[in-house]
Amino acid sequence: MTARTLHLNINVNSSGRHPASWRAQPDPLGFLDPAYFENIGRLAERGRLDAVFFSDGYDYGAPKVARPWQALDPLVALTAVARVTAHVGLVATVSSTFNHPVNIARRIASLDHVSGGRVAWNVVATRAPGAAKLFGLEELPDHDTRYERADEVVQVVRALWDAWEDGALIGDQESGVFADPSKIHPVEFHGAHVRVEGVLNVPRSPQGRPVILQAGGSPQGVDLAAKHADAVFCVNHTIEAAREFYADVHRRAAAYGRDPEQVLILPGLFPVLGATEREAWARKDRLDELAGTENELAALAGSIGLKPDDLKLDAELPWDKVNAVPPTSGSQGFRTAILDLADRERLTVRELLRRNPAGHRSVVGTPEQVADTIEEWFTERAADGFNLNTDFFPEGLELTVDQLIPELQRRGLFRTEYAATTLRGNLGLPYPEPDRAAAAP
Amino acid sequence: MTARTLHLNINVNSSGRHPASWRAQPDPLGFLDPAYFENIGRLAERGRLDAVFFSDGYDYGAPKVARPWQALDPLVALTAVARVTAHVGLVATVSSTFNHPVNIARRIASLDHVSGGRVAWNVVATRAPGAAKLFGLEELPDHDTRYERADEVVQVVRALWDAWEDGALIGDQESGVFADPSKIHPVEFHGAHVRVEGVLNVPRSPQGRPVILQAGGSPQGVDLAAKHADAVFCVNHTIEAAREFYADVHRRAAAYGRDPEQVLILPGLFPVLGATEREAWARKDRLDELAGTENELAALAGSIGLKPDDLKLDAELPWDKVNAVPPTSGSQGFRTAILDLADRERLTVRELLRRNPAGHRSVVGTPEQVADTIEEWFTERAADGFNLNTDFFPEGLELTVDQLIPELQRRGLFRTEYAATTLRGNLGLPYPEPDRAAAAP
Repeated sequence: MTARTLHLNINVNSSGRHPASWRAQPDPLGFLDPAYFENIGRLAERGRLDAVFFSDGYDYGAPKVARPWQALDPLVALTAVARVTAHVGLVATVSSTFNHPVNIARRIASLDHVSGGRVAWNVVATRAPGAAKLFGLEELPDHDTRYERADEVVQVVRALWDAWEDGALIGDQESGVFADPSKIHPVEFHGAHVRVEGVLNVPRSPQGRPVILQAGGSPQGVDLAAKHADAVFCVNHTIEAAREFYADVHRRAAAYGRDPEQVLILPGLFPVLGATEREAWARKDRLDELAGTENELAALAGSIGLKPDDLKLDAELPWDKVNAVPPTSGSQGFRTAILDLADRERLTVRELLRRNPAGHRSVVGTPEQVADTIEEWFTERAADGFNLNTDFFPEGLELTVDQLIPELQRRGLFRTEYAATTLRGNLGLPYPEPDRAAAAP
Repeated sequence: MTARTLHLNINVNSSGRHPASWRAQPDPLGFLDPAYFENIGRLAERGRLDAVFFSDGYDYGAPKVARPWQALDPLVALTAVARVTAHVGLVATVSSTFNHPVNIARRIASLDHVSGGRVAWNVVATRAPGAAKLFGLEELPDHDTRYERADEVVQVVRALWDAWEDGALIGDQESGVFADPSKIHPVEFHGAHVRVEGVLNVPRSPQGRPVILQAGGSPQGVDLAAKHADAVFCVNHTIEAAREFYADVHRRAAAYGRDPEQVLILPGLFPVLGATEREAWARKDRLDELAGTENELAALAGSIGLKPDDLKLDAELPWDKVNAVPPTSGSQGFRTAILDLADRERLTVRELLRRNPAGHRSVVGTPEQVADTIEEWFTERAADGFNLNTDFFPEGLELTVDQLIPELQRRGLFRTEYAATTLRGNLGLPYPEPDRAAAAP
């Protein structure tokens, strides 16, 4: 067995994770500027990160519109990043509910050609109710239906990518033979939600086929990940819960006949860095003060399925009310992670708020302290790496690249040079054999 | 009335217009390489062209796959071009039949932000039958249905773009006020084909809203153009037909209450250039010989709705068979233009083949000769400019930029510097007032 390698992405969610991020940035409207994202891409590559991860949605923070959001289509922003970088991976989130698989396959494959094989599709089923109205539906399809569709969409997208053999394009100028059509295999897929017959007009990807990521924390989401994903983004606030999650995904992947080591498990992690622990907390407190508690309290309440008035700052969560909330169609991954943290550590709401409860696990401290927890989680198989968040761009990422990464490199945990030019190669995943069984005529 | 200005785009259809184009290129697989398109964009900007026009479809030339095609998603390729240019416009073709308007609006608006306001959406209803199967349909919706949908899609895309007022984003870091939600106006559109409620999560475009182009030649296509388009791409092989078309669009635009001067009419033109007429013909003959007549004969027959065997090289078109062909769901614009040319000039099939009948009007000659016909068509209001084609990239475009453009500039017909940084500005179109009537709640 080869040695495991740590994998790190940076989550590029507009201005940064902190609600006050935009107030600390050089340009508060940078989220519309391609140069802003190109700079982030260059920084990530300087830090030898596996990928820049662009989350996405159809939301813009209504009704308050209190901060920047993911406005630009990720494929457009990532194309700009692709052209100023050479190694870093490019993760594009695209909804399987609101896009046809042919369009998803084509756009992802196009960027894969443009980037020389550095793209991953992050499959999301979309849970924002506003998206349904935007797309002309009275309400979202229910959770099961969205995931049934996601499963079919992933199958057909992979089949479309696999339709072209390597070597189907010849381009012999002398003889005039441009292609070998016998190496192109039409797809025929008739599902309950999706029906596709034909060939995608993008030839085989430079990395065989683009990488597939999955980010949902519901049982259906985890199952989708175990069945199809090369990597899973998840939310875990405690190492116990993370180890359970890790083992669960491995079990499920094995049950699908897959090598569990080829499903990388990457929880979110939100480090706030300082030269001393005190400096790190001062950095966080300064931003927290700018943001105030009101919005964060509302976000926390929303994540759990309660109203802000249900929460008292100096008391624990109102567990009776919490337990009376019916299963939500919102993000079950985030909800479970919050409740797990609050329960294990018996935190008051105020303490919980300092721990970034509505988002990913936050660690405030020195590069050594953050590296310690990364090492622990990695070694104990709570994670194969992390989907890093940062308080605000670009400064938070600069700190990560210039202080945290060198510490991880000193410990021999993280690469000092890229091993490959493709994302698949840097993730340590093998070049994929075409799989035409799912959608053969 | 201000002086009319000539407008010129370059049609970037993979390797070039000529079927043998790829055999004369430096890299026969350049159609998958972003650097190839970036070079084209830079050349177009050096020639002060209005825009690079990316046609598109879901086809890949099956079953023969005899040449390059539009493989990369145009938004992806154009983002790369956007980042290495500063003035040239970026026209993205996107099907209104196979994309949801919210996705169209978002992607086009995203590129408009990334390019600083240089984007046009070329609306096509898609006529390739293979596309229907790919998207899970037994056959294409009929022609009328596709254009009814296109009309609704254009209305709702415009409404989504107009939902944001200028100044809705504030970004005041001191006070913490990020936006003024009262300047964001939800769309409500309930059509027969499309239903949208909500707000696009991309703020107002740097050019007010992206430009809208239309390229269909059927009566429904022309009507769509007259109703909505800022510019029309059309196929005319004779100046008589072009003048009729020009006057027709103007009449229809006026009937819709629009200023006809704000609908630019840009027929296709395919110059093959040489220092002498003989040199230009030698250039064309060399490529024609590489291609052979077989494929072109098949393309011509297909465009008319006949079989290759129906055509005899040294006879005129078989008019009895031509007239017996029922109205086709293919491109009526191309078919009408071919028949008009063959009829007016009583051409044999062999003569017709030399005139690029399955494509746009071809002129083989010196820069002066090509400039003469451009000047004539422009002056006589057969055209406001042209959608230029070239035999193969990049050489054909280099000839256009270095020989044809200077000749047009010497005559005072074409700009020597860009007038604006937005496409709307360079097309001489006014900054648009938001129009919320079509889709107000």
